[in-house]
Amino acid sequence: MYQPLTIKDRGEFDLDGFRARMASYLGGREEGNRIFFDALEFAHSLHAGQKRKSGAPYISHPCAVAEIIICEFSLRDPELVAAAVLHDVLEDVPSVTFEHLASRFGTAVAELVDGCTKLTRYHRDKAALKDLTHSKILLTASRRLGILIIKLADRLHNLRTLHYLPKAKRQRIAQETIEVYAPLAAKLNIFPLKRELYHLALSYLYPKKSKKILNLTRELHGDPAVLELQRKIRDALASLSVKTDVRCRVKGLGAYYNPGNRTLRLSNAESRVDFTVVVRSEDILNCYGALGSLNRVFPPIPRTLRDFIATPKNNGYMSLHTRIHFRGENYLIKIRTPEMDERCRTGILAYWEDPEKITEDYLHEISDFLRTIGEYGGAGPQRKALLQLSESEEITVYTPVGDALTFPKGSIVLDFAYKIHSDLGDHCRGAMVNNERAELTQPLKDGDTVEVLTSPESLGVYPELEDLCRTPKARAAVNKALSRKRMQHAQRIGKEVLDQELMRHGFPGEVLNQEENVQLVLEVLNVKDLGDLFARIGQDLLSPHAFLYYFKDVGLKTGDQERAPTHLEAVHRRNVILVGEPDPVIHKFARCCRPYPGQEGVVATLSERGVTFHRPTCEDLSERHGLPPQSLLDVVWVKGEPWPQPMVFQVRAILPTRSALFAALGKIPAGMHVTHLECRMDQPAPLLLNLEAVLRSFEEARRLFECFPEGSAVVENFGRAS
Amino acid sequence: MYQPLTIKDRGEFDLDGFRARMASYLGGREEGNRIFFDALEFAHSLHAGQKRKSGAPYISHPCAVAEIIICEFSLRDPELVAAAVLHDVLEDVPSVTFEHLASRFGTAVAELVDGCTKLTRYHRDKAALKDLTHSKILLTASRRLGILIIKLADRLHNLRTLHYLPKAKRQRIAQETIEVYAPLAAKLNIFPLKRELYHLALSYLYPKKSKKILNLTRELHGDPAVLELQRKIRDALASLSVKTDVRCRVKGLGAYYNPGNRTLRLSNAESRVDFTVVVRSEDILNCYGALGSLNRVFPPIPRTLRDFIATPKNNGYMSLHTRIHFRGENYLIKIRTPEMDERCRTGILAYWEDPEKITEDYLHEISDFLRTIGEYGGAGPQRKALLQLSESEEITVYTPVGDALTFPKGSIVLDFAYKIHSDLGDHCRGAMVNNERAELTQPLKDGDTVEVLTSPESLGVYPELEDLCRTPKARAAVNKALSRKRMQHAQRIGKEVLDQELMRHGFPGEVLNQEENVQLVLEVLNVKDLGDLFARIGQDLLSPHAFLYYFKDVGLKTGDQERAPTHLEAVHRRNVILVGEPDPVIHKFARCCRPYPGQEGVVATLSERGVTFHRPTCEDLSERHGLPPQSLLDVVWVKGEPWPQPMVFQVRAILPTRSALFAALGKIPAGMHVTHLECRMDQPAPLLLNLEAVLRSFEEARRLFECFPEGSAVVENFGRAS
Repeated sequence: MYQPLTIKDRGEFDLDGFRARMASYLGGREEGNRIFFDALEFAHSLHAGQKRKSGAPYISHPCAVAEIIICEFSLRDPELVAAAVLHDVLEDVPSVTFEHLASRFGTAVAELVDGCTKLTRYHRDKAALKDLTHSKILLTASRRLGILIIKLADRLHNLRTLHYLPKAKRQRIAQETIEVYAPLAAKLNIFPLKRELYHLALSYLYPKKSKKILNLTRELHGDPAVLELQRKIRDALASLSVKTDVRCRVKGLGAYYNPGNRTLRLSNAESRVDFTVVVRSEDILNCYGALGSLNRVFPPIPRTLRDFIATPKNNGYMSLHTRIHFRGENYLIKIRTPEMDERCRTGILAYWEDPEKITEDYLHEISDFLRTIGEYGGAGPQRKALLQLSESEEITVYTPVGDALTFPKGSIVLDFAYKIHSDLGDHCRGAMVNNERAELTQPLKDGDTVEVLTSPESLGVYPELEDLCRTPKARAAVNKALSRKRMQHAQRIGKEVLDQELMRHGFPGEVLNQEENVQLVLEVLNVKDLGDLFARIGQDLLSPHAFLYYFKDVGLKTGDQERAPTHLEAVHRRNVILVGEPDPVIHKFARCCRPYPGQEGVVATLSERGVTFHRPTCEDLSERHGLPPQSLLDVVWVKGEPWPQPMVFQVRAILPTRSALFAALGKIPAGMHVTHLECRMDQPAPLLLNLEAVLRSFEEARRLFECFPEGSAVVENFGRAS
Repeated sequence: MYQPLTIKDRGEFDLDGFRARMASYLGGREEGNRIFFDALEFAHSLHAGQKRKSGAPYISHPCAVAEIIICEFSLRDPELVAAAVLHDVLEDVPSVTFEHLASRFGTAVAELVDGCTKLTRYHRDKAALKDLTHSKILLTASRRLGILIIKLADRLHNLRTLHYLPKAKRQRIAQETIEVYAPLAAKLNIFPLKRELYHLALSYLYPKKSKKILNLTRELHGDPAVLELQRKIRDALASLSVKTDVRCRVKGLGAYYNPGNRTLRLSNAESRVDFTVVVRSEDILNCYGALGSLNRVFPPIPRTLRDFIATPKNNGYMSLHTRIHFRGENYLIKIRTPEMDERCRTGILAYWEDPEKITEDYLHEISDFLRTIGEYGGAGPQRKALLQLSESEEITVYTPVGDALTFPKGSIVLDFAYKIHSDLGDHCRGAMVNNERAELTQPLKDGDTVEVLTSPESLGVYPELEDLCRTPKARAAVNKALSRKRMQHAQRIGKEVLDQELMRHGFPGEVLNQEENVQLVLEVLNVKDLGDLFARIGQDLLSPHAFLYYFKDVGLKTGDQERAPTHLEAVHRRNVILVGEPDPVIHKFARCCRPYPGQEGVVATLSERGVTFHRPTCEDLSERHGLPPQSLLDVVWVKGEPWPQPMVFQVRAILPTRSALFAALGKIPAGMHVTHLECRMDQPAPLLLNLEAVLRSFEEARRLFECFPEGSAVVENFGRAS
């Protein structure tokens, strides 16, 4: 059972004392535990001389982590606790390798330690590196859950000793705890851990508000109404044939935190004090009896009765819930058996105690969850959002044969399709929800029966679709489809750009057919194949000149020089990108300089996220992005013909005066298909106009945007007209 | 207990048979029942010779109504059944009076019969007369509930024999049943009656859709899934220590009807088949045990568990509810004791059986409800809306001391205030809802704690406020406040108009001080006092000429002729109304001719609903309203000074082309406080522009409206700027 200890982190560390304590817990002479004491000696020697910020010897930290796992999490698994004490050696001791650990402590321990190790070698910006570390931990933890247990104990100890760190680092760690580790503790259903993580992190992040809330909640402990209610609950249950225990719990800081808008507020919590009724019987019918006895005295607030015994939460939580009102306050009462009560406190930790206690399905679901979020290819904030969504309320919907599936609140038809099967998601074109036709973006609600409709074509993705999904699986799938589409486009653009460069420098057109020479250059550039080469050029991760530079040399060496120039001229002409129709997955109109579709002289930059259009005069381009002029592309809009499908453009225009606004509107040609315009004018100038138009060609787009003063109108959003 | 019978309504009526049947039910020789048989003879002789549309003797109808009450409603109250058999005599037999009945059968019977009698003498349009009859029945029924029982039995028999009536009358009766009588049956919790009323009325109103739904629901009786589910429910309950009965009920037509949008549709019902589990024990804890046994096998759809045992519905209904999903369909399961089961079928009827069975509170609440809706001063459709709202779902909110109050879903803070006390409503300025400040129009939700905030000033009412309220009491109070305000205004305007007429015809100014003469005229005109006179002139219910006509004569007779003209000249100059500031409670800008505030030459009409502005050229004025030109008033806007408070105007303009739209917008003066404009243009012309502006005077209003082509802009709505 989880038992928080007070752990000191001062200038000394009593290794012998620690060893003796652990020996008394684990049994020091038992064969199985030798690995832990061996690991302790090893870690102690490796960290020798290293200090924590607090001044304590470094070894005190891994020891504390091991102690948390052993004494607080009540876990005795020798490999897990050995890995806990070793968890920082790969990261902090350069001489130690995975192989060292594997040969001395076995692969299992080495993999646990490796899983806990931060990524450091890969160079990118710090945030991206951090995100990759999260991705790695989740992925490795999806195979070995112990990694997550060590990381959570590690984080708990770090938070408990956070005051020794500089302020910026404190903030960062606290923020990461709220965004990553506390939701993970919730997902694993280790309630006291989740509560302490939120408590410590929020106290650091919101010191004033935390103090205010804690002052208030402290008073609730002796509140006469709370004491009276507790007495009355006991009285109401007294006539039952089984004994019950009634506990009262003042909610922790986490209950007052809303991750959606990042606020810590009293009004964020539905109730401040909860009561837990533990019915001393394993027959769950007694829980319903207790509910009846309670409801008779305290009628439940309508629509608040929940039966998490019949339908446990995704994280395995079970209880009957009823909310009641007493003297101006609402209270939650949870009714459960001792087994369920134990389960709420230990959650997944019960697995190490007795694997039988945790179902295969639940382990599978946890592992699937960690893997999907780990594999997710989007940006860091989106990965964190996926973790936080896992703490959402849940809804239950049904397949046509009556199987119940739970989803985060707000999930849409596409989430359902992906939950059933990836193929169903990939070809979803909507659903019959309760026998009525529904779009694939329709939100689901409790009790819906959903029958997915498919089409032979692949799902048409667009950027907003990812955010509309609420499950990791659907979000990851949409993200993957968006990436795939961008990758295909990058390959096409990359080839076009390389062709242009080759031609400009006088290479003959069929030069890329020289397989052997090309292969040599690809090896030099550390590029897999031609497709990879095109993609990297098309994402601006590799300059086409790099290829030309080596290719020229290879050509010289292999005697092909008569067919290629001997040196590259410095030609400062830009390459050209031909844009046939706008595609919201690939094309972006930069906010900085507000180019518009069909505008003359627009340039483009390439990246992993697609093509971004800028005005050639854009200051951000050179200043912020630091791009040399030659890495830009000249954009040629295919203007003559209409697009295969009309597109809806949301345009936002900022205008200095009302007369400028009306003048602009007056210029819009009569045939233009403007569908909506709206302007709030209750603020002082400038005025903000929102306009929606269905456009059919770049020429038409140009005509629309030219009605507005230079730079005043910007593309907010665009997509296929439905 | 309610037991529907098959009643024939053909060309004959066997009075002896009827008498014998009733004697066997009631005991013909018992002293108390003599009044019924006496009433039967009396009614038989009075209706002698009258026929029903079916050709049957008229007496067959009151006899059938009495039989429904005796045999189907299982009521034996001699006065009630005597009144039932007499219920049409006051209406259909001119020679019989209230006094006749009272002297022969006692006041109680006479009052019951009188309460059932339609209003006929008062002359107004048919709809208004119908509404007054509803008002009367509700008011009298609030004092004698038996009236409502007789009316419901009367209506039931009428519906069962509806096919003999002409189509238009059938439709009208069926519609009225849905709008008035079925909701009343629901309010009284007489479920089988409510079900049959809806069934019969909807079958007449929506013959095709009813047939389709009935065909489908008929199949559900033998549906394998339903039978299987019923078996499984029985199995799940088999292990309980108490016996249970499981009944299956296919929902009636009423379940598929949505009064909000007046549709009869399959998708309107949440489930098509319900199960009732009657737990054969009066210990309600056994109901919770049954719930637990069921939930174990059929996990409830989340958030659908309802405990109507702990919190009975407003109409006294009690049960535990759980919704479950089985093979693609959702089902409602109701769990209750035999007593609750009985109560669902008999509802208020139990009162006549044994008054102890019905609580004082419940009787009081029913009577209050009927009285409030009866007294309500708004129009007929609004009165019916109040009845239909009583069938809404309910929410529970709490007073600061923890008392639970139920409200129709969607109720607002003001509903709460009026429920607590009229004074609290009349002075409500908002509330603290869960310790946060809330406007008086904020909708409440389950579990809210509401503390009403008051102000010394009276509630500021406006027309939309009435519809925002959901309870009869609050709606009636707002309606009353609006009427009071209109009445005060009518008195002021009436006095002004009369003064103008007097002056035009040469009466001296102080002429209304001639108390005696005035009193004489008021008596002739059947008007109470001067205030009443002004009000009736100010509502155009009385022409000022009528007063002048008689006043002149009185003046002549009493010798005051030297001070008054001897005859009235035909002066066709209109009277004038001065409008200082617009008031949404009183002023309306007619939709027909679209005048605007501040427009020159506008005329006004007066009515009970206030002042309506028209253009003088309005064709509707003369054609539809049939008003002679001299009954119009010339409007003079007080233009010079700004209004005491700025007003927000929602303006809607219809413009033929985009250039006309932009031209109009271009003309809006720079200082005009236009706060929002919006135009949907995805339809072909004409274009619809919505514009919101904060205006400070009639002059400013005129300047705004003059930007638009003549007659293209219309006032949608206006009110105080907040």
